[in-house]
Amino acid sequence: METRPGTPLLEAAALAGFAVNTPCGGAGSCGKCRALLDPAPDPLPVELKTLSLEELEAGWRLLCRHNASADLRIHLPASSLFGGGHQIVTGHDAAREGTADPVVRQAAVRMPPPSLEDGLPDLPRLDAALRAAGALDRAAPPLAAGPEALNRLTAGLRAGDYAGTAVFRDSRLLAFHGRTADAPSCGVAVDVGTTTLAAALVDLRDGSDRGVAAAMNPQTVWGDDVLSRIARAGRGREELGEMRRAVCAVIAEMIRELCLDAGVSTDHVHALAAAGNTTMESLLCGVDPSPLGCVPFTPAFGNGPRLRARDLGLPAHPDAELRLFPVIGGFVGGDTVAGILAAGLDALPGVSLLIDIGTNGELVLANNGALHAASTAAGPAFEGARISCGMRAAHGAIEKVVLGKNPVFSVIGGGPPRGLCGSGLLDLCGQLLAAGLLSPDGRLAGPEELPPGVPGAVAARVARTPDDGPLFVLGGAPEHPFGLTQRDVRELQLAAGAIRAGILILLRQAGLALDDVDRVLLAGGFGQYIRRENALRVGLLPAEVPGRRVHYAGNTSLAGAKRALLSRADDARLDALARAVRHVDLSTDPDFATEFAMAMYFPG
Amino acid sequence: METRPGTPLLEAAALAGFAVNTPCGGAGSCGKCRALLDPAPDPLPVELKTLSLEELEAGWRLLCRHNASADLRIHLPASSLFGGGHQIVTGHDAAREGTADPVVRQAAVRMPPPSLEDGLPDLPRLDAALRAAGALDRAAPPLAAGPEALNRLTAGLRAGDYAGTAVFRDSRLLAFHGRTADAPSCGVAVDVGTTTLAAALVDLRDGSDRGVAAAMNPQTVWGDDVLSRIARAGRGREELGEMRRAVCAVIAEMIRELCLDAGVSTDHVHALAAAGNTTMESLLCGVDPSPLGCVPFTPAFGNGPRLRARDLGLPAHPDAELRLFPVIGGFVGGDTVAGILAAGLDALPGVSLLIDIGTNGELVLANNGALHAASTAAGPAFEGARISCGMRAAHGAIEKVVLGKNPVFSVIGGGPPRGLCGSGLLDLCGQLLAAGLLSPDGRLAGPEELPPGVPGAVAARVARTPDDGPLFVLGGAPEHPFGLTQRDVRELQLAAGAIRAGILILLRQAGLALDDVDRVLLAGGFGQYIRRENALRVGLLPAEVPGRRVHYAGNTSLAGAKRALLSRADDARLDALARAVRHVDLSTDPDFATEFAMAMYFPG
Repeated sequence: METRPGTPLLEAAALAGFAVNTPCGGAGSCGKCRALLDPAPDPLPVELKTLSLEELEAGWRLLCRHNASADLRIHLPASSLFGGGHQIVTGHDAAREGTADPVVRQAAVRMPPPSLEDGLPDLPRLDAALRAAGALDRAAPPLAAGPEALNRLTAGLRAGDYAGTAVFRDSRLLAFHGRTADAPSCGVAVDVGTTTLAAALVDLRDGSDRGVAAAMNPQTVWGDDVLSRIARAGRGREELGEMRRAVCAVIAEMIRELCLDAGVSTDHVHALAAAGNTTMESLLCGVDPSPLGCVPFTPAFGNGPRLRARDLGLPAHPDAELRLFPVIGGFVGGDTVAGILAAGLDALPGVSLLIDIGTNGELVLANNGALHAASTAAGPAFEGARISCGMRAAHGAIEKVVLGKNPVFSVIGGGPPRGLCGSGLLDLCGQLLAAGLLSPDGRLAGPEELPPGVPGAVAARVARTPDDGPLFVLGGAPEHPFGLTQRDVRELQLAAGAIRAGILILLRQAGLALDDVDRVLLAGGFGQYIRRENALRVGLLPAEVPGRRVHYAGNTSLAGAKRALLSRADDARLDALARAVRHVDLSTDPDFATEFAMAMYFPG
Repeated sequence: METRPGTPLLEAAALAGFAVNTPCGGAGSCGKCRALLDPAPDPLPVELKTLSLEELEAGWRLLCRHNASADLRIHLPASSLFGGGHQIVTGHDAAREGTADPVVRQAAVRMPPPSLEDGLPDLPRLDAALRAAGALDRAAPPLAAGPEALNRLTAGLRAGDYAGTAVFRDSRLLAFHGRTADAPSCGVAVDVGTTTLAAALVDLRDGSDRGVAAAMNPQTVWGDDVLSRIARAGRGREELGEMRRAVCAVIAEMIRELCLDAGVSTDHVHALAAAGNTTMESLLCGVDPSPLGCVPFTPAFGNGPRLRARDLGLPAHPDAELRLFPVIGGFVGGDTVAGILAAGLDALPGVSLLIDIGTNGELVLANNGALHAASTAAGPAFEGARISCGMRAAHGAIEKVVLGKNPVFSVIGGGPPRGLCGSGLLDLCGQLLAAGLLSPDGRLAGPEELPPGVPGAVAARVARTPDDGPLFVLGGAPEHPFGLTQRDVRELQLAAGAIRAGILILLRQAGLALDDVDRVLLAGGFGQYIRRENALRVGLLPAEVPGRRVHYAGNTSLAGAKRALLSRADDARLDALARAVRHVDLSTDPDFATEFAMAMYFPG
């Protein structure tokens, strides 16, 4: 996996679709996220407490305490994975998951060579052999193949004395390897986020990971939220095409790099699956999302289109399909379906709440299999956008804040801070609320409004912006400081309030209350870093749900896309799964405005 | 239809897939090929005998007596069409043919607009409307669409107040026109001949012809028969790709011209079907035909592949499929399946023999529904290749020969002869045999070997080539004459002998004799011009079949491809039809060599 130096390993793992256990919220105190690192960095003091000397010598470290450096190998034991030790949390059937049945399969076959008496062409000859071997169902349509696969078959059969390995998707032959045992076959899962793109290369033969990459969605230059993208795409086919090409070019580059690093030819990328919100999926395939921009917010498609990867300029086998995840309705798109799939929400007993915090907040409520979903325009505050000194969780970002006598600002990669990422923003506001520097209605204190008892080191950071607004200084030169502004606080209020209001409406529509929630699954690259007490203070998480019921689920959009590649059954049920979800349109709910306004108040 | 000036109208009609009645073999004596011409050329003397004055004044002429000139409109009444008045000859069910059910259909629909209460996306909304209107079967998979069709749907629905016309193939939406009644939809049928390419543009709404074009297969530069093409294609992927691109570029140009002439956008080409022999179909889609070049002559595919037209560089709707006809076995390919389909051979009672004379001779024997097929390497002699002065039936070609006291050489387009086309070759050899200037074993007489009684005007043409071989002079400057050589006669012997031997083997394998044949259908552009007495003399047609049983079926390969576009039922049964035909491999028949050697003798 490619990642920037300084990226927290927990974030890298989340981007890779691995949900790591972090009951302590990444504080390093629970020791649940242990992993073998090679080379292992020097042990940290907190690790000396949590891990034994033998473990430390063997290379075990706490994933939550280390950042990415050059070339690091990570072994994550199942016990450190979310769901690994908590089978109750996901609805997957462990037995079924053991049976790998990827969408592109392989079968070794041997057949009689053609003769003057038996003139069957190559393709139906292979078809008969696959059926005889039980690799193709009796009811499957006849095996079909494109020109490239036919040429491989013709050459492979003759090179391999009519034995070899067929690689096929349903009844479509993709490749044939004569006599060769090694028939590489990979899939690419893509999370098409409004702000961040993530891609994973998986080996379709055994389900193993071959690498993960992340990149900015280049469409952010045309606006950081979905509405500005929709507006621009609606201006004409030129703009629409430009936006499609931009995002596809970056995904193509990610695939090329993943394949290069893994030593896999892009011709061996046999299947792709991508999940994103309705707008991102439309833009990815060049479908005008304009009708989403006005009431009644109608998507163009429901079931997920299957496109040829090469049509989108993605490097892959010529017959490789990109499977887009289906849309539930309105803005609730394929990323939500992927989240439901990844967490197995439809099979979970009791009441579960999936909160996927990205540029939009996607919410799913599962009540003993009955699914409700909504999308809130949380805005990209948690991804660093629209915050005066906001940035992604990358080198130089303040990712953790503890205000006390001597405030601690934890900077990714060390060194002086360059800005504030989502978890840092949440921490900072939570701590400012606790210190009384931020009022429940969101007013940030200026130098003249300091409450009594504020430590000097904290008070020293309370200043004013050039236009005389309050500023909590985080860094920069003394004459040009940067920090948290009143406007930044408003952005957080909007983001957290939208999610909280959405949760309340969703529960109400299902006839449930917060008390009824058995578990909350926090998803998204950011979800992993949330410190619960600060999330409670700013109202992002409902106080009614105890901490032990909150779990971190990682990038469920990417994990769901991977599942669709690795399980034919899951791939086949996606459309039905999307149709089974009741779409709750928050904008039309009569209570939403009230709830939203109320949710803007910090519970403190 | 585009055709060269001087092309006989009967040939133009054949290329267009219209089999015209010519019981007299195009002599102008039977009057069966009457057609309305606009503008009508001056009546010929023979027409004054065959047609009434009223008919002549109305513009009726005999198609067999006129050649193409600039911009001519032809109305062909059903009574002039082969099968029109002779229902016994084809196995089609007239009632069924009346029900147009093309592979790409249209349906006008109206649906409720989306609302806050009804947020169904556009595509499933249309799906529901099509099902409600009965245009989509209940069992059909959900409607799918590519990005372009989705954009048309999204725009069309909003432009047309949620009413419009959907254009779809099975469950795939190709286009949507809001409020517009006019939703153009065309298909392109292609006959991929070894020497000649023909393409027809048909309107999928009513089955009407919108134009026909013909061109040389540019692969002829790499050899005029299939074996030399196979040899070159087998040299490497470079050569294979070059050959594919060459033929596709010419077909693409034909499609562009057809569309331009018909005033149709190439985006409205919604379906394509192509039929050719196994080698031509393989080369068209870039599949290496090498295994056809050696025993046991194995094709790569059986069922006909469906390819996206644009992948082959053919101008069409982005989702338009090119449907290749299935292969029966060995060299017996899709053109033979198309012939069976066009003539309805599988439904004909009694014993029928289809002879498709092209570069290969394709033979089908239908015995009350039981089908046998074979391919003979007749060679391209009948298409003008390998004949010293051979040429296609174009301007300047001698197409008819009558030797008598004053030999008559009928030249296409008038003027001095430039060469000899297939029908001229057949006529000339037949007449030379009758005059004793050609012996039954194929020896051409030199000036010293003239039999007694040869008219002076004929004898004057008997000369010698520079290398002292016999030459029957047809034209050219006195010092550089051209004409028929001994080697040319050998080519005709090979071509006619291969077909005759093939017919005999096919009948023998089916346990039948020539007497049992109820009808012979002559197909191919050339078949139309055969004068029966000369075909009998050179042994191309068996003498045992009386003339009234011989019918001209036109270009059945092109006609079959058209049927596959215009009938979903026929399209659906093609693969099964191909598998129902027994492939007779003449090369492995123990009697073929003997029959072939015997067939080389002219019956005289």
